[in-house]
Formats: sequence, C-alpha cells, structure tokens
Amino acid sequence: MTHIFLNAKNVRLGTFCLVLLLSMTFISCNKKEIKETGETVTTDVQEGPVLSLYPKDATEIKKLKDSNDVLKISFDEHQKKADKAITNGIEVPVPKDPGGGYTHEKHKQNYGEMYAAGIAYQITNDKKYATFVTDMLLEYAKMYPTLPLHPFSKENHPAGKLFWQGLNESVWLVNSIQAYNLVSSAISEENKKIIETDVFRKVVEFVSVDSKETFNRIHNHGTWAVAGVGMTGYVLEDQDMVDRALYGSNKDKKTGFLKQINELFSPDGYYSEGPYYQRYAMMPFMLFAQAIENNQPDLKIFEYRNQLLGKAVTTVLQLTDENGAFLPFNDALKEKNYLTGELIFASNIAYAYYKDEALLPVILKHGKVSISSAGLKVAQALDNFELTAYVKKPMLILDGKDGKAGGLALMRMSNGKQDEQLTSIFKFASQGMGHGHFDRLSIFMYDGKQEILQDYGAARFLNVESKQGGRYLPENKTWAKQTIAHNTVTVDQKSQFGGNVKKSSAVNPKLIFSNLEDPNLQIVSAVEENGYEGVKMQRTITMIKDEKLERPPFLIDVYTINSENVHQYDLNFMYQGQVMETNFDYKKETTLSPLGKENGYQHLWKQAEGRSEKNLATLTWLNKNSFYSISSLIDADSRMIFSRLGANDPDFNLRNEPSYMIREKGKKNHIFVNVIEPHGNFDPKLESVQNPHSSVSEIKVLLSNKEYTAISIILDAKKTYTLVIANNSSESNKQHSVTIDEQEYEWTGNYNLKIN
Amino acid sequence: MTHIFLNAKNVRLGTFCLVLLLSMTFISCNKKEIKETGETVTTDVQEGPVLSLYPKDATEIKKLKDSNDVLKISFDEHQKKADKAITNGIEVPVPKDPGGGYTHEKHKQNYGEMYAAGIAYQITNDKKYATFVTDMLLEYAKMYPTLPLHPFSKENHPAGKLFWQGLNESVWLVNSIQAYNLVSSAISEENKKIIETDVFRKVVEFVSVDSKETFNRIHNHGTWAVAGVGMTGYVLEDQDMVDRALYGSNKDKKTGFLKQINELFSPDGYYSEGPYYQRYAMMPFMLFAQAIENNQPDLKIFEYRNQLLGKAVTTVLQLTDENGAFLPFNDALKEKNYLTGELIFASNIAYAYYKDEALLPVILKHGKVSISSAGLKVAQALDNFELTAYVKKPMLILDGKDGKAGGLALMRMSNGKQDEQLTSIFKFASQGMGHGHFDRLSIFMYDGKQEILQDYGAARFLNVESKQGGRYLPENKTWAKQTIAHNTVTVDQKSQFGGNVKKSSAVNPKLIFSNLEDPNLQIVSAVEENGYEGVKMQRTITMIKDEKLERPPFLIDVYTINSENVHQYDLNFMYQGQVMETNFDYKKETTLSPLGKENGYQHLWKQAEGRSEKNLATLTWLNKNSFYSISSLIDADSRMIFSRLGANDPDFNLRNEPSYMIREKGKKNHIFVNVIEPHGNFDPKLESVQNPHSSVSEIKVLLSNKEYTAISIILDAKKTYTLVIANNSSESNKQHSVTIDEQEYEWTGNYNLKIN
Repeated sequence: MTHIFLNAKNVRLGTFCLVLLLSMTFISCNKKEIKETGETVTTDVQEGPVLSLYPKDATEIKKLKDSNDVLKISFDEHQKKADKAITNGIEVPVPKDPGGGYTHEKHKQNYGEMYAAGIAYQITNDKKYATFVTDMLLEYAKMYPTLPLHPFSKENHPAGKLFWQGLNESVWLVNSIQAYNLVSSAISEENKKIIETDVFRKVVEFVSVDSKETFNRIHNHGTWAVAGVGMTGYVLEDQDMVDRALYGSNKDKKTGFLKQINELFSPDGYYSEGPYYQRYAMMPFMLFAQAIENNQPDLKIFEYRNQLLGKAVTTVLQLTDENGAFLPFNDALKEKNYLTGELIFASNIAYAYYKDEALLPVILKHGKVSISSAGLKVAQALDNFELTAYVKKPMLILDGKDGKAGGLALMRMSNGKQDEQLTSIFKFASQGMGHGHFDRLSIFMYDGKQEILQDYGAARFLNVESKQGGRYLPENKTWAKQTIAHNTVTVDQKSQFGGNVKKSSAVNPKLIFSNLEDPNLQIVSAVEENGYEGVKMQRTITMIKDEKLERPPFLIDVYTINSENVHQYDLNFMYQGQVMETNFDYKKETTLSPLGKENGYQHLWKQAEGRSEKNLATLTWLNKNSFYSISSLIDADSRMIFSRLGANDPDFNLRNEPSYMIREKGKKNHIFVNVIEPHGNFDPKLESVQNPHSSVSEIKVLLSNKEYTAISIILDAKKTYTLVIANNSSESNKQHSVTIDEQEYEWTGNYNLKIN
Repeated sequence: MTHIFLNAKNVRLGTFCLVLLLSMTFISCNKKEIKETGETVTTDVQEGPVLSLYPKDATEIKKLKDSNDVLKISFDEHQKKADKAITNGIEVPVPKDPGGGYTHEKHKQNYGEMYAAGIAYQITNDKKYATFVTDMLLEYAKMYPTLPLHPFSKENHPAGKLFWQGLNESVWLVNSIQAYNLVSSAISEENKKIIETDVFRKVVEFVSVDSKETFNRIHNHGTWAVAGVGMTGYVLEDQDMVDRALYGSNKDKKTGFLKQINELFSPDGYYSEGPYYQRYAMMPFMLFAQAIENNQPDLKIFEYRNQLLGKAVTTVLQLTDENGAFLPFNDALKEKNYLTGELIFASNIAYAYYKDEALLPVILKHGKVSISSAGLKVAQALDNFELTAYVKKPMLILDGKDGKAGGLALMRMSNGKQDEQLTSIFKFASQGMGHGHFDRLSIFMYDGKQEILQDYGAARFLNVESKQGGRYLPENKTWAKQTIAHNTVTVDQKSQFGGNVKKSSAVNPKLIFSNLEDPNLQIVSAVEENGYEGVKMQRTITMIKDEKLERPPFLIDVYTINSENVHQYDLNFMYQGQVMETNFDYKKETTLSPLGKENGYQHLWKQAEGRSEKNLATLTWLNKNSFYSISSLIDADSRMIFSRLGANDPDFNLRNEPSYMIREKGKKNHIFVNVIEPHGNFDPKLESVQNPHSSVSEIKVLLSNKEYTAISIILDAKKTYTLVIANNSSESNKQHSVTIDEQEYEWTGNYNLKIN
C-alpha cells in the first residue's frame, strides 16, 4: 500500500478525491474515521500512513506559500538546501570519524538533506527531489548491512554504526524515515523493497534489538530510539515495530514511549533533566506523538496523562528568561534559547493540537514553521495574529513522576519597567540524572533581561574543537556541578551528597508550602534534609511588592539550618556586576590564593574578607543601569568573603566572575536572613543617579523554633515587615497563634506578613 | 524695545503682522533683512532679540504639535516639567552645599524649570508660565547681589556663587537667559529692570569680570562662560557684553568665542579633549552660534572657518561606535552615547542651518527635538523621513588648530553582516589637555556592536556618591591614563612622557601617510618620537578586505621601534572575551601577584606566561558568537603574558578585564608585526562552529631600514600578502623601487600591497 495520492497505482482514486476535496473540503473520502479531538490531523485523501504532512495540506501549503511569508521563508529554506544538495551530489562515506569529523558531519548532513528534499518533493511534486532521496537511500542500502560497530565507539557508551554513538543513529532514523515517508509514493516497488529491507529494517534492528538496553532506557536517548523505530513501524506498516516502540521490547509497558512519558515528566510537564535537555527531548516526543495521533488516533496520545505533552511544551517555554534563553540550571549552555530548531517542531505540533494561543508569540519569533500539517495550522493562525509579548507567569513546577520530588518555583513580578519582570528561581528539584548539579535550595535572579544572581550553567563551549572537542570540560565537574558554584549553602566546604549522583538521586527535597497567586506576595518554602548528614535545611523565599512604595519588588530569603554538630556554613551569591559599596570594612588581598583545595573552592580566588561589629552587612553593586543590594543578618563572627572565579583553570575554561559569601563558622543551628533588593538607577544620559543605597536598616530574627520562624526587617528606617513562617505546615487553612515580643500574631495558613 | 509681538506696547502691530503672516507666510513685515544663507533663522514678526525661538515658529509648533508626534512628545515634556514646578512652588535657597548636595541640585533644577516654563509660555501663551519665571527671577534678584563666593569653592578651581564651581554658574546663565528671553514680553518694565539689573547684569559681571581668567580661557569652561554672557548681551541689547563674549575681555580677539573656535577645534571639527567632552562643549558652541546668527547674521558664524561648527557636529557623531556610544578614549564613560541632551540641541541647530540629511537618523533616534525654530525645522524634516541607519564612514580626523597635531584614523569596512562594520581606531592625536591619556599610537577595535580590543575609558562612576562622590577615581590616574592601559607599546614599564601632561602637550605624534579611500584597503602610518627619550616609534595599521575570500576584513599591525639603547618593549592588547586556544604553551600562576609596582602595572594580576620555539604566537578568543585571533611575529626570547585587571584596587573600582601582552626584553630596534583577525562563528541555535582557528600560518619581516619596512604574511597556508611601507614618505605620487629577496618591487605612493 502506498500513501501519496499521485502514486501511479492509485492515481484515479487520488485524483477523484482531490477534485472532491477542492470543491467540498468538509467531505472526506478517506476510509478512516474522522477524528473529533483536536484539529491537528486533517484526515483526508490518504492512501498510506502519514507521519507529519497530509497531501491535502501539502497542496494547501503550495497554494498559500506565495502569499504567506512565514510559509514561504520556511519552505524556501528547505528547497534551497535540497537544490544545493542535488547540485553537490550524493556521498555516503564509510563511517570512520568521531564527533565533529568528516564522515560524522557528512551523515548528519545527509539526513538533513534527505528531509529537505522530501519536503521539496511534497510541495513542488518535482520528481528530482524524490530521486535524490531514493538514490541516497539506495547508497545506504548498499553499505549499511555490511557495517560493523563504528571504529570510534567507546566502551560504556552505547555505540552506533554510522556514528560513534548510538544516539546519532536514532536521530538519523527519525529524520530519514520522515524523508522516505514524504517521497515513497514516487519510488518503485522494487526500490522500496531494497530500501525498507536493507536500510530501515536494518537500522531498526540495530537500534531496537542490538541496542536494546538504550531502546528500553527511560532517558532522552531512549526517546530518540523509540521515536525512530515507532515512526518506521508506521511507514513500513509493521505494527510489531510500533508496539515495541510504544510498550518496550517485551511489549509489557515496563519500558517504551508511554513509560517514558510517565517517568520522565512530572504532572506539571517538567522533564527531570531540566529545560536545557527538555528542549532537546521534546522533538522526538512530539514527532512520535504526532505520528501516533495520525496513525493510531484511538490512543489519544495528546490527551495522555492529562494532556501531558502539551504541558511539557508550555513548561519548557516558561522555563526561559526574558531573552528566551533556557534557565541555566543543571548542565546548560546560556546561549541556547527557544528559537532552537527542536522547539519549532514541538511548538508547532503543540499549537496544532491544543490550539493554545499563548504559544503564538514564541512561534512568531521563530520566524518560520515546520512544513507539515501542524506547521500549516500555525502559519494560518499567525496570519491573524498580532505580535504580543510572550507572557511569563509565576509558576510552581513540581518535579518527579508523581509530582512529589520537590520542584522549582518561578517567582515573577513586574519590576516597574514596561514588559519587564523581576524573576527569581528557587530550585528544590531532584538531581536530574547525570546532568544535574548539587544545587539544592539554590536561587538565582534576573531583573528584566539582566542576570543579577547567576546560576553558572555548564562549563562547556559547545562544538568548539579547541575546548576538548566541544564536550563538557573538566571544570564542569570540578566547578559547575559543585554546591559552591550555586547560590545556596555549602556545609564544611563539601558539596551536597559528597558530590555523589547516585546518593543524590535516591532522595529529594520537599516543598513545604507555596503561594504564587498573590500579585504582591509570592512565597515558597522547601526543605532539604539529606544533602549533608545530620543537617536539616529549610529555605523560604518571599518576593514582595509594596504598592505603596515606588520601589521594585524585593526578596526576603530566610535560610534555616539545624544540626546537632558544629559546622561551617557558606552561603554564596554569584552576583553579577561591579561592587559599589559595603557598610563594613574589608581587607583586599595583595596576592591571590585559591579559597580552598577541592569541591569547587579551588577555583575561587579569594579577593577580600570583611567583618563587622554591626549585625547588618550590606553589599551594593551596579549592573547596567540599576543597583542591587544584599543585606545580611550577621554577627561579629560572620565573615564576608569576596572571591572571583578562575583559579586552577589551566586552560582558561572558566568565566572569571565574582561571588560574595557569608561564612558562619562553628555553628550548629543558624539562620541566614538576607534581603535581596534591586533599587535605584543610573542614567548616564541625564547624568542622574537615584537611590544608590540599600534601604534596609535592620534585620532581626524574632523567633526560631521547630514550629515557627519569625523575622523582621526595616526599610527606609521606618517601614517594618514582619514575616512569620509556620515551618513544616503544609495545610493552608490551619489556624496559627503565636506571641512574639509580647505581641500576638494570629493567622490562617502557612505564613503571615505584617507591614507596619 | 521688546521682542515678542504680543507685548502690550506693540500689540496692534503684532496682531497685524500675525494676520498677514497666517495668510501669506512668505511676506515678512520685519524690519530686518531677510537672510539668504541657510534657513535656520526665519526672520519674521519680531520686536526684539531672539535667541532660539521666533514667535512665528512658536505659533507653527502650537499648530503642528497635535499631529506631529515628535513635537508633541518634546513639548509635553517641557510642559509637564513646568506644571510640576508651578505646583511645587518656588524655592531659591541660599547656596551652601557642594556638588550633589541639596542647594546645588536645587539651583540646577531651578534653571531647568525656568527654561521649561519659558517654552510652555511661548507655545501656550498661558501667563502662569511667564509669572513663574518672573517670580523666580525676582527671588534671585533679591538674593544674588548679596552673595559671597560659594562656601565650598576650592582654591585652584574657579569658584561660583550659586554653585561651588564657576562652570555651573555659566550653565545657569545659559539656561536662565533663554528662559527670560522666552517670557520677557510678558514681564512689566519695572520687573524687567529689577531682573536685568540685579540678576543678569550681576551674574554676567561675576562670570566675565570677577572670573575673567575662566572667561578668557580657551577651554570648554570658557565656552560656557562666553555663551552665557554673549546671549545675555543680545537679550539685554548690550553690545559691549556681546563683543566681550565674541572677542574676549579686551575685545582684541586674543580670547573669546571666535578664538575658541579657532583654537579648540581642528579643521576637521575635532575638539582637542576628545568626543566625550566634545559632546558637552557642543551645546554652548551651538546655542551661542544660533544666537549670533539670529542677532548678528553678518558675522556668518555658521560659515566661519569653512563651516567648522557643522563639521564639529558631524565629527562628534562619527566618533561613536555602532551603539552610538562615544569612542571611549581619553577620560570617557562608555555609557554615554549620542542620545544625550546636549546633542539634541547641537544636532537640531546643525540640521536647521546646514540641512545635512545625514544627521536625521541620529535625530530620529533622539525621539525628540528642541522646542525652537531649529527644532521645528527638524520636526518637519522628520515627517517625511524614513529611518535608515546612521552611516559611519572611514575618516581621517586631523588634530590641532591647524591640523598638524597628529590625529585619529577611523577605519571602517563591512564585516559581512548586515549593517555592521569592523571598526578600528588608530590614535596618534595630541594629549587632549587634562583629560588626555598617555596612549599614543594605540588602537582599539569593534566588530559590529561588540568591543573586541578595548580602550578602558575612564575609571569613574558618574554621580555615584559611594564612588568618591561620582568624581574621577584614583585609579583613573594610576591605571586608566597610563600607557599600559592601552593597546600600544610601553617602554621599560613606564608611561609615555613619564606621565607628565605638560611635556606631552608640548609635542605631538605625526601622521606619515594615510589612505582611507580604497574600499578594500585602508592604511594609516604615524610616528611618535618623543614619548620615550631616544626611542622612535612608527606604527602602520592596515585594514584589508579580500573580496575573493569569504572572510571578514582583518588588520595588519606593523609597529617599528628604533633606539640606540636597550629597552623592554611591552605591546599590550586589552582583548575582550574568553581564551579559546593558543599555539604555544604557557604556565598559569597558582597564586596571583601584580605584574609590576607602578605606572599601571601594579593593577594587573599576572595570570600566565608563555613562550615558544616557533616564530609565530597565536591567541584565539571568543566574543559572543565570533572568534578573534592575534597572530604575532615572535622569537624564542619573546614572552606572551596574560593578565587581568584588579590588583591594588582596594575599593573594587576597576573592571576585572583581561589583557595579553607580547614582551620583548633587551632589544634596541624591534618590529612587532601582528595580524588581528575576526573569523568564524559560533551558532548555538544550530550547534555549529565555523572557522574557529586563525588562518595565519606565517609572518615575516622581509626588510627593515630607515626608508622601507616590508613584511609578508601567509593566510590559509597559501595566500601571501606582502606589504611594503615607504617609511617617512608623505608624498603620494613618489616613485619607489626596492629589491627584496631578489624580487623587485616598484610602485608609486606610500605603500605597496601584493597578494599572491
């Protein structure tokens, strides 16, 4: 059976359907049922399986593309690529090079060119494109069955045949099977047999049988594998292949695509490795889901787990800063943003199915769509859509397949400037597998587009050959993953869980309570009890906007530590900007030495150390045109340490960025209370400076016991904020009553904030 | 005589004129001649002197402002300010505070509010605005005659009465006399007499007689003084005042405004302190010139010195980077760009007179115009103007009143990206008075909007109180002005001229030859013979674009040093970005110490030192998405030193930025040859990296004697560029012939570039 209506065998039926279709688009002569849910899939004149682009939609794209800019740009890009490929000719070299090498890049290029030619064929019906794909696949057919494992494959890492690693083999399959699907109506039965037998079945065998372990892994590598195999199953009409992809090798649902959806995502659509890898994983998830929807609509894949795939796309887009860059926690490169190709596919499919208009601003920024039935829907929607800002909301995103493995809080409030927010991220999520960092209870913060307190991200220069071939650098492990690289507390100069991923993956932080609904007060409290033996940590982050004051929102950060043993607690802040002032004296070092010997400390040059007789330490810095202050509750034993990254970095792999630490030595229990405050501005045009000083004049702990923590801060020497936190309380309607300094506080819920 | 046609005394004539004017705008009933040159000044119904806004134009602005956005925005800003001022009431406090203090800021605010109210009166004719100005000036009249010198005035710095320094007094006068001019038609004769006698004549006496030395100084402080006094002279119809402003206290033309124009600018319109201060000085220059043009058109002030004032406005705008920020040499703050208020006035007046449409893109970016006859012309022109990029051209800008005190070369070529250029600045200018740096023969470079090789600018946080009250910081002298802070050669770890401004101001570098006309080859050669005793330095910078190669332009930098004594030569590069690779080994320091003890070296932490047995040292770094390399001719004795700014900086005043130095020790004569090359790109979206390596494989000196320097470089291991420089040759049609390696070179002109 073939699947394109212009295929010789079915040309009469096809033509008939086409005519019918053009005059009465609501009548379908398809044998399949008309679907009701969503509108992604316009079932129509159709003779064979379709992965992403229905003939009717191809016709419509052809018709619209000259009047619809986004379609034209998107299609032209494919056609140009295909034309260039045809001019350059086909080369299918024997695999011999590692990542970045010639044959590696050539096989990547090949699947990209086949996919582009497939698209070009569907839209233009020009045979040369189909011939190009056919000829290239026939070349693969000659070579593939004879291939051994790739010469550069590594022990302990799943191997490929075309590529050094199996992951690339799966990606090759995902792309090539789509190309084949797009042109197969133009291929002779004889050639189809050769291609299906000697290429696709062989690759599927390698990916799903020889590499069974990866195929059954609950991991993005597994997702690429099952997506490739499942999509091939639909095209080859091999339900066994499809079922293994969906339900795992043994079809027992213990592994496979559905299990991956169950295990890798939280109910909120959070992918356990974090947004940087979620971006990458969303492509096979959404492409395979689209193929399932087109071929087994009864599975209702887009409805699965409460529309989880839709949530996942929204969540990954929300997990970006105001530049669109993915929030850089875990192993993440800060350069990567939501304009990446994977999210064009994913967001198009999500829009086509869920019709969530909130996605359109991002899609409009992409400036192009996928050439597919989904992409057509998007292009039509964009026609009537005026650009608005993509709305980033305050969000509590729970982690873990059941939502019980901690999570992330995105606190967001207008910072008083147009279309800008103050964003603070509080992370109390699970380890996130091998790409996770030891960063529990860390925070980081943006003011508009500016990074103010940073998460360092990964130490890696992607694909830059001179930087260890573009792989993760040694400093990713020795610095970026360590606890000290994050805005959280490091105990005894060691990383959480001793830097052991296995131990860390076994247990998770816990959300205590949260409220992100109040436009002027967002609060989240979480605990981590396992990072350091015998040390219980609770951090409560409160973002407050006082509408009566002409002041941006600010953060109150209460970090309570309880232990029966004596420890050193280092609360570090990777602030971004230039020091303006402190309210304490410090001594700058005249020669620089590393702050410690290991666990990331060896990478910090110690610049200065301060102390104070006051019990308030304030650091103010300038970033672009705004001032920021951290005001900290301290005592005479506290030390304020300034350091700068870059020590023990033989190859200049690290960015030489600053940090500021409050160090408490010889403490059992301790409460860090900090106010983090954007303030004022520096206008070089008007040569004016407003509010360059912190407005915090006092910070006090009023009460601290197992049940309650109460603190007060004074702003502008007159306004008192008293915050009482009901530790451990997860009931939002519980009645509380407590007397502090002879004053009675009564309230319902997890916390009470009083402003006098 | 009064000057506004609605003044009671002349109301009949005025009304008649108005009617006539509205029906036939080309007929003028003015007694003055109609001017022919330029169109700035629309002489018209006019009873008295006008500084900037003719009644007819005020009427036109009133009419247009509701349909012309830029006029509306610009006017509304003034009116709002005036309304707020009226609501808040008048306060003229006895001066007692220094810069930034209450009374200082209040008197600044007062002249701003009077000016705004003057504008509001002219456009609305609402008496309340005129009353506000009158009442405030009457308050000043009560106080000013009794004022002693300001209590915070400093020895050795010209004092004020309202302000701690005289400069602010002049600025007060420039603004207040304009305000008075705008409303005086509404003031009773009696009050006018009080105001003129007790305020303006008194301030003028203080500025021009008591502070005679500043008044006669050839310096921007002098310009503010003569502008204030001269403009007051016109309004008070006191020609003696005007003449003293124009020709100096003795009216002998040895000082005064015309002499300032003669001495402070080069024939190319370059202001000797550099663009950062030129921006500031252009305001009084242009405001006073406009008043002269309106009141003494016969002086043809805008034609003076070959239209120098027009050139000066163009030059200061050209002396900006692609962000519009002023090129940060000499004491300059990098935050300051051409959107600054001073340049709104200056560029509006320049456009109104010279009608140079090239100015419009900048003016459009301002988003507002001055409310004046000039501003009206601009607003009308903008109505029919579509935004285009402001074109930045390659320019040779000579320094010195006669153009013989060295200069600056702005080399600019497209970098291959849309609307972007590679810009290299070669500085061989005079000292630039007290704000100059010891930076002769330095270069710096931008790629598009990115700073690649920086000039550090000034060490100052303007108006940030905690940074020494916003004044220049100690590190401005100990670091920013020193030779080592610049991309040039420091001899024996000392700054040029031993850091002595007086010595440096006495002699200037010399331009040897230049050609900035060739779109693919821009070349400039200059010498400095006095910076270090007995050391002659010549630097020749060549920017080359090889159109046959798909490669951005690159620089060849030939720096020849001749001396009879042995020295240490440090050629430093303040590169911006992250080190990617070197082709030599280096040893990183495990503890950091300063690179030296004084002359700026004490501020550099030494990070690493390298050496090589090859005679080519290459450093490659990444800045945003592009790679950059410096390839240097070296020998086994050369040292490559990496350092980072920040040592001996007790108050965190310095930005901790990197530098890379080629050090040659124990040399008499030496030639540094460097190729500075942008290359490749890093695309995080596509995860692709192109050309991450330098393409320079060989650098050779072929010949070096008094007459000629010849070097060759090889790119891509095959393409040879041979550059022969005729040292000392300033004749562009001279015939040269030289044999190098048995090959004959014959050419006409200063240089010869051969590409094989």
